[in-house]
Amino acid sequence: MNPPYTIVFALYPGVTQLDFTGPLEFLSKLPHARCVLASSRGEDIRADGGIVFADIARLGAIERCDLLLVPGGLGTIEAMEDAELLAQLRRLAASADYVSSVCTGSLLLGAAGLLKGRRAACHWAWLDSLAAFGAQPCPDRVVVDGKLISGGGVTAGIDMALTLMAEIAGPQFAQTAQLTLEYAPAPPFASGRPELASPEVLAAARQGIDQVRDRREAAVIRAAAACL
Amino acid sequence: MNPPYTIVFALYPGVTQLDFTGPLEFLSKLPHARCVLASSRGEDIRADGGIVFADIARLGAIERCDLLLVPGGLGTIEAMEDAELLAQLRRLAASADYVSSVCTGSLLLGAAGLLKGRRAACHWAWLDSLAAFGAQPCPDRVVVDGKLISGGGVTAGIDMALTLMAEIAGPQFAQTAQLTLEYAPAPPFASGRPELASPEVLAAARQGIDQVRDRREAAVIRAAAACL
Repeated sequence: MNPPYTIVFALYPGVTQLDFTGPLEFLSKLPHARCVLASSRGEDIRADGGIVFADIARLGAIERCDLLLVPGGLGTIEAMEDAELLAQLRRLAASADYVSSVCTGSLLLGAAGLLKGRRAACHWAWLDSLAAFGAQPCPDRVVVDGKLISGGGVTAGIDMALTLMAEIAGPQFAQTAQLTLEYAPAPPFASGRPELASPEVLAAARQGIDQVRDRREAAVIRAAAACL
Repeated sequence: MNPPYTIVFALYPGVTQLDFTGPLEFLSKLPHARCVLASSRGEDIRADGGIVFADIARLGAIERCDLLLVPGGLGTIEAMEDAELLAQLRRLAASADYVSSVCTGSLLLGAAGLLKGRRAACHWAWLDSLAAFGAQPCPDRVVVDGKLISGGGVTAGIDMALTLMAEIAGPQFAQTAQLTLEYAPAPPFASGRPELASPEVLAAARQGIDQVRDRREAAVIRAAAACL
């Protein structure tokens, strides 16, 4: 019998659920995949949009994993200062074959000290913050730096997952998952990046983001100081 | 105060989680959106990939909704014969402004008798089955037939959600959500449809699907006979 291929999704309250549910739908199709949702305390996790996830493992109880995935979300503001979460990310990353993040999940990898000198992606609105952790911010949708693979904002996690699957199980395997999940995207609009959106749409998106900018930037400064 | 805009996601064991978690991430940004996960019995729902969703309402306890969304999944085989689920779909659809499905969720709308004479989408591998319910199967990624809006396989739900958002709150609102969620897809491969995939990839995907074909087709025949 083949051993399971253990994929740990490191969660926290206020996670953006699509950051990990998108990749999980793809990655769960890897041969012998065992997907584990886990958090600092193993409690049920309330994500944005009001979804509650149950059957959550405690990160400290997981011996090791093959792939570690860290999603982003508004909850990163508090999670960047969750010492247990950061310690467990460092421990699990040390033995994982691949370490990955989606969206502002890269801020958590940064706060855990795992991005020093590394190229990484992030949501377009928070990309510059990565520099505070000694990372090289990269605006690409998917960034591969050795065994560190990161995706941009939210939906970039799906493209990142396909990239990971091709690395792990080969391109044909990744393409089979893509066909099974009918991933031939056809957005009705082309507004998914700041350089594509109209000025009105960009202003509206920035307005929402600016509501949390001060709190998030202050948390980045504190977390960066703590991990130096 | 504005009333909530109630969006009900009708779940069942064995649902494909990305069928509804993708749309939910977008739709939850609608003004005054209240997203409700619900099932026949209100129990925790185990989806594919091993994710467990908690805080599930009982469909029968929901007075009405503005938008009803029915995701697909392997669990449709049993759900097509869940009389309580089908009765609640009929009841909620009657007063909803919009009725939507993703992937094989359209088979459930069909089994509930809601697709007679209507154009609808489905996962590419199961599209033909819609005809058994008197629907007009349509291979488009997003199909709009009046207030009935359906999406193709799994990831098509995101494109369907953006289409719905533009209908409900206008194109600029939908585009703002698209930018916030950085939905500028860039799949590393172009294998998301049977006509795009290589013969080897198509054969591998069909092999997985054929493992459940007999069970699913038999369930469609029984459900179609029951709703005539």
